Amino acid sequence: MDFGYDTKTQALQERMLDFMDQHVYPAEQVFAEQASEQAADPATRWNSPPIVAALKTQAREAGLWNLFAPPSIAGGAGLTNLQYAPLAEISGRSPFLAPEAINCSAPDTGNMEVLAHFGTPEQQKLWLNPLLAGEIRSGFCMTEPDVASSDATNIRTQITRDGEHLVINGRKWWTTGAMNPHCAVFIVMGKTDPDADTAHQQSMVLVPRGTSGMTIKRGLTLMGYDDSSHGGHAEIEFVDCRVPVTNMIGKAGDGFHIAQSRLGGGRIHHCMRLIGMAERAYDLMVQRAVSRSAFGKPLADQGVVHGWISQSRVRIEMARLLVLRAAWAIDERGGKGAHQEIQQIKIAVPQIAEWVIDKAIQTHGAAGLSQDFILAELWSQARALRIIDGPDEVHEMSLAKKEIRRIRSAT
Amino acid sequence: MDFGYDTKTQALQERMLDFMDQHVYPAEQVFAEQASEQAADPATRWNSPPIVAALKTQAREAGLWNLFAPPSIAGGAGLTNLQYAPLAEISGRSPFLAPEAINCSAPDTGNMEVLAHFGTPEQQKLWLNPLLAGEIRSGFCMTEPDVASSDATNIRTQITRDGEHLVINGRKWWTTGAMNPHCAVFIVMGKTDPDADTAHQQSMVLVPRGTSGMTIKRGLTLMGYDDSSHGGHAEIEFVDCRVPVTNMIGKAGDGFHIAQSRLGGGRIHHCMRLIGMAERAYDLMVQRAVSRSAFGKPLADQGVVHGWISQSRVRIEMARLLVLRAAWAIDERGGKGAHQEIQQIKIAVPQIAEWVIDKAIQTHGAAGLSQDFILAELWSQARALRIIDGPDEVHEMSLAKKEIRRIRSAT
Amino acid sequence: MDFGYDTKTQALQERMLDFMDQHVYPAEQVFAEQASEQAADPATRWNSPPIVAALKTQAREAGLWNLFAPPSIAGGAGLTNLQYAPLAEISGRSPFLAPEAINCSAPDTGNMEVLAHFGTPEQQKLWLNPLLAGEIRSGFCMTEPDVASSDATNIRTQITRDGEHLVINGRKWWTTGAMNPHCAVFIVMGKTDPDADTAHQQSMVLVPRGTSGMTIKRGLTLMGYDDSSHGGHAEIEFVDCRVPVTNMIGKAGDGFHIAQSRLGGGRIHHCMRLIGMAERAYDLMVQRAVSRSAFGKPLADQGVVHGWISQSRVRIEMARLLVLRAAWAIDERGGKGAHQEIQQIKIAVPQIAEWVIDKAIQTHGAAGLSQDFILAELWSQARALRIIDGPDEVHEMSLAKKEIRRIRSAT
Amino acid sequence: MDFGYDTKTQALQERMLDFMDQHVYPAEQVFAEQASEQAADPATRWNSPPIVAALKTQAREAGLWNLFAPPSIAGGAGLTNLQYAPLAEISGRSPFLAPEAINCSAPDTGNMEVLAHFGTPEQQKLWLNPLLAGEIRSGFCMTEPDVASSDATNIRTQITRDGEHLVINGRKWWTTGAMNPHCAVFIVMGKTDPDADTAHQQSMVLVPRGTSGMTIKRGLTLMGYDDSSHGGHAEIEFVDCRVPVTNMIGKAGDGFHIAQSRLGGGRIHHCMRLIGMAERAYDLMVQRAVSRSAFGKPLADQGVVHGWISQSRVRIEMARLLVLRAAWAIDERGGKGAHQEIQQIKIAVPQIAEWVIDKAIQTHGAAGLSQDFILAELWSQARALRIIDGPDEVHEMSLAKKEIRRIRSAT
Repeated sequence: MDFGYDTKTQALQERMLDFMDQHVYPAEQVFAEQASEQAADPATRWNSPPIVAALKTQAREAGLWNLFAPPSIAGGAGLTNLQYAPLAEISGRSPFLAPEAINCSAPDTGNMEVLAHFGTPEQQKLWLNPLLAGEIRSGFCMTEPDVASSDATNIRTQITRDGEHLVINGRKWWTTGAMNPHCAVFIVMGKTDPDADTAHQQSMVLVPRGTSGMTIKRGLTLMGYDDSSHGGHAEIEFVDCRVPVTNMIGKAGDGFHIAQSRLGGGRIHHCMRLIGMAERAYDLMVQRAVSRSAFGKPLADQGVVHGWISQSRVRIEMARLLVLRAAWAIDERGGKGAHQEIQQIKIAVPQIAEWVIDKAIQTHGAAGLSQDFILAELWSQARALRIIDGPDEVHEMSLAKKEIRRIRSAT
Repeated sequence: MDFGYDTKTQALQERMLDFMDQHVYPAEQVFAEQASEQAADPATRWNSPPIVAALKTQAREAGLWNLFAPPSIAGGAGLTNLQYAPLAEISGRSPFLAPEAINCSAPDTGNMEVLAHFGTPEQQKLWLNPLLAGEIRSGFCMTEPDVASSDATNIRTQITRDGEHLVINGRKWWTTGAMNPHCAVFIVMGKTDPDADTAHQQSMVLVPRGTSGMTIKRGLTLMGYDDSSHGGHAEIEFVDCRVPVTNMIGKAGDGFHIAQSRLGGGRIHHCMRLIGMAERAYDLMVQRAVSRSAFGKPLADQGVVHGWISQSRVRIEMARLLVLRAAWAIDERGGKGAHQEIQQIKIAVPQIAEWVIDKAIQTHGAAGLSQDFILAELWSQARALRIIDGPDEVHEMSLAKKEIRRIRSAT
Repeated sequence: MDFGYDTKTQALQERMLDFMDQHVYPAEQVFAEQASEQAADPATRWNSPPIVAALKTQAREAGLWNLFAPPSIAGGAGLTNLQYAPLAEISGRSPFLAPEAINCSAPDTGNMEVLAHFGTPEQQKLWLNPLLAGEIRSGFCMTEPDVASSDATNIRTQITRDGEHLVINGRKWWTTGAMNPHCAVFIVMGKTDPDADTAHQQSMVLVPRGTSGMTIKRGLTLMGYDDSSHGGHAEIEFVDCRVPVTNMIGKAGDGFHIAQSRLGGGRIHHCMRLIGMAERAYDLMVQRAVSRSAFGKPLADQGVVHGWISQSRVRIEMARLLVLRAAWAIDERGGKGAHQEIQQIKIAVPQIAEWVIDKAIQTHGAAGLSQDFILAELWSQARALRIIDGPDEVHEMSLAKKEIRRIRSAT
Repeated sequence: MDFGYDTKTQALQERMLDFMDQHVYPAEQVFAEQASEQAADPATRWNSPPIVAALKTQAREAGLWNLFAPPSIAGGAGLTNLQYAPLAEISGRSPFLAPEAINCSAPDTGNMEVLAHFGTPEQQKLWLNPLLAGEIRSGFCMTEPDVASSDATNIRTQITRDGEHLVINGRKWWTTGAMNPHCAVFIVMGKTDPDADTAHQQSMVLVPRGTSGMTIKRGLTLMGYDDSSHGGHAEIEFVDCRVPVTNMIGKAGDGFHIAQSRLGGGRIHHCMRLIGMAERAYDLMVQRAVSRSAFGKPLADQGVVHGWISQSRVRIEMARLLVLRAAWAIDERGGKGAHQEIQQIKIAVPQIAEWVIDKAIQTHGAAGLSQDFILAELWSQARALRIIDGPDEVHEMSLAKKEIRRIRSAT
């Protein structure tokens, strides 16, 4: 047992921190202004602000590119999950800029993993390579508006074979990034065989942007934010949308299995970045406490603020250790073997990040509610992650049932 | 002691509920669409959606007008606080529409009280009468960006006399409604005598929209929402802004005293409406629980949801009783005599409403985060009210100190 | 609607507060010493300390006797629930002495109500009259060790008729007061007809102390306290225990109905007293904060303590209002009509009292954990009441189901 | 970074678990009965139940002895803190038996460390050797009843030199173990030089049991428990109590420094064991949930219980990782270098353990409050540790101040 980072990780942490200081933090204000300008014009409303492309070039030059990609993905950084975790954390300190700058943002990372592990050479050439190169973006269509999608058996989108084509009918939403015109391809999950057993009813299909029958209806807001600079969150309708059968990922019925493996990674990446978001909020909280006075003394001398700071410190430390342990468990035993560890962080980390950010907001007073600080937007991300990829309560139920089985069988 | 509403209140509750069912709820979708359309055009972005004016006419016809106005305000409904509380609560169920429809929305109500109680006949004629008639809206400029405004002694805006004029210099923010071009007048608080004792340094001055030297800089967002349909929340700069000395409300040095009395009412109105917001969220939560299934049974049959529903019910009941008791205390002993009761609800009610709305969101899954339900926006209001009109912690400190004095003197 | 106590209540509050100051608080130390001495001798271990009898005499002389007893109980004080609530609250400030002193302690009050409303004249003469006179004490045997007794259908104790006798077999526990040799009679609940519908399987039977076949096995501890001065909490075994059929209360099958009505009152009395316990802890907290310094200033000047004091104040106020409203609802609509209101306080009040007492303990440091303050023992009572008379979660489930039905039928 | 236990630790964990199964758990019932019998007789009331001595022999034979003792203590097991932590955790599953059985219970471990690191050869021969052999027990007198002892500068006990003697005057309490007649020696902390700087006013002195002038006044209860089987918690009075100057540990003025180093270890040992207490409660909770039904289905199928189980699992995992990390930090950087890590666990772990145990109690219903399960007594330990060795709030303030300094100096 050893709680120290290895030397390779430490060197990358240094490099990543330098990149944040030199390029990312200074770009935040520019990014906000560009996003605001673009949002005023319907033609550019959902585009990525131009500075993002510049940051991507800088990141690539700094050797900070595709850090998420394990050795199994050719062309990636080849880090273990345990090595990637602290780097993803740092990127989470500026979550609307840094992850995309280093080509490690959702849902692209998950889609790249799917294509690398389950795609045909042709699919990889068409979509994986440009994704790894950061030339296009991609979407992932799973959640549906009409059902509780946390229970995958509820999914209603149909994918039926018609000769050499697959025909998709259904309605999806919360497809992150889809409003951005540069989001070039979508992985769509739907039922190919409703009569198969639960784990084999579903399949995943690649649908290029602009395919006839696929309509991107509107952008959803997430606690008030439309996330336009990140391509928003789209509701998408599929009406007799046809793609060649070669667009199937894996074979028919593999969808559930692929989704399970995909979500595992996504959950852990989100949690890594949430640690960084909490740390960013924490720094802002302490800095505010030091710089503001009320009732005759700095906030930093007031007992209530001491409680917030110390509890935030303690909770962030615990959350980080849990995330690192989950990353280690995946490296040791694979995503399936580390399922409990992944579920633990999915339950714990969003709640902790939300709590810390809330206290940082409160320390800032009304300013903390506004666009003048990153806090309100950070909060919206943490809050959303108590629902996205499965609500807290679904994971709690699932984890509890496993524990009950374990202890029942041990006694 | 009697926990039943009087017959007059019951009749008005009936009438108000009818008004909500017949006019307000059906207007919500229209309102959202009009607001969205207007927001896309810079020329109309901050206007009130046209349907609001229609609702105001309907409310007036229904005898639901200026319900907030106590007998001391000529032309008001003449209700006691205890009678108004349950009506304000009902309006809070649709907080972006109903309060304005019945001409009971902040900051107009507070400004009308100030003008009625402290204004000259001339000031009343110019501003109070059109406000009571719902013809104009108004702003209140107190909070400042550079200081912790919860401590009123921190206020830096200067009001200096120059012959027959008052000259205002300073920077204000969170002036709700100010972005709307129909917001015709502002009550501005600033220091006229920095050397006076703490309670007599400040004064209030009327500044008509368009006065030279006053610049409305920008709209602030509040947890992601710009509240454009309600006139937003503005940052305003005063540079050598001159108004006649007759625009002073009361006399120089009265500002702190007027603010105290004004905020008391504001706090209780906010809290009354928060009860309604919590009840709205509660209804949506139960309805969602009944209509959605996950993992083989309706959410309404799941234990975690039972906990949310019952705890919400209990907390709302307690919050309402506390609000009603505060209203009663004001009626019995005046705002000053009921200071502790007002502070209690300012501490308790936003936290409870926030909790209930959060659980309603969670019950809705990702939909609860989106614009498809009113929940996310309700939440932003409740969260903001843990800071607006004084952060929780400031009221907690103040209440505690009073209690310590009380018990110390009793023993 | 009126939040003021009526004049009769105010006069009784005065009288009760005087009684506490003059007799009860001064007796606490004596009571503790007598209890400690008696506990050291097995022969007296479970007796009531002698000072209790003296207090009963003083209370009776002060006209503070059987205050709980509504007009329907001849010989009682004839107060409404709303009038009794604030008096019960005051008695709760010294919960191990004052309720018994005024002959208003559990389970006697509930048993007296049962006997008054359902007993035969003979039963009343034998047991009700001496209970009203404070000459004997009584026990109530419902909860069973082997089943989840919060679900009354689980009860297993059998009561079978054998000619002119009823024969009881079963095991009960948590029979409060039973270890005291002056606990003269027990009301025992058991199944007379397991085949009847759920609400008519059970009956209540009077069993005098010393009846053959009834064995008082041991005293249970409650979070470390054996409550010996109050007769403890007994486990009792019934093996072919025979009593005459005239000992049946009401008729066979009435048990569930009687229990429902009995528990309603018990729950509200407990909650009334919990308000007093919380107030006692609150006073101690503030006094400690005033009298202790750490790190250079009194605890009363420290922000964390301000948070505890103000949150305690607010929560106690809300809890009290909820209790008073429930008392009012019973007076207006009877126990059955006020079922929801009773359930609300059963859920809310123990949690709030527990929270306040916990903070009072923390303010006292290690002293708060010890016998030198009443706090640890108060806490044990509050904690226990989150389980006694039905765990929080059972009431939450029940309340939620009712609310779901209500809203479902309204929409 | 590596989250796996080393092989030596794994082997010891196995051995320790076997010891628990074969010897400790079966002894719990016997221990309770012996303790109960002894408590009834004033002559034996505070003795250790005889079965403890038997367990000590068995533990020694099993090679489970002085596991806490680092390589710096001759005759100890020579484990690192990281290796000891999981073993201490296992002992915490039966905290009233197992730690003493393996000679690793407080306050002996801390006293042994003090004697090993700061004692003279003579002091070590007299007191350290019999402590390491488990032949005697010892006490630690620091906390005082009249002051907030969390602030060490408050300590009032005086130690004055009179020729070749030291004269002690003062009052101590919460001296754990002191009521047991086999508690042979006490380390007493007091002020030798009130005029020195804060860190050099105090000294530590050895006082053998029976020294004239030292009176053990009474046992204190801790949330209802007198902990008689563990020697209780004593209040002790020193009136002109004289010991030879050779009884000074280190030199005059070293007391604060020694206390700091002593408390660090104590805090981490307590936290290690709290993880085990929480795990014990967790197992009981799940087993109860599986074996009880209410309202037609096992508790293990109810959503509220799922929430308790999963949240308990997640929080225990986080707490354990934080404790292991603190142990690692001490091994890497010494107690002083790991001060922040130690403070983090002191803040986090008691709160988490208290929460888990509370939920386990609630799952058990009234049985969980009673002596029939270990839960109520476990809870009292966790609750007490939110105060013992410094209340939560003191550590929170201290940690926050350090963090504020760190971030202030970094920006």
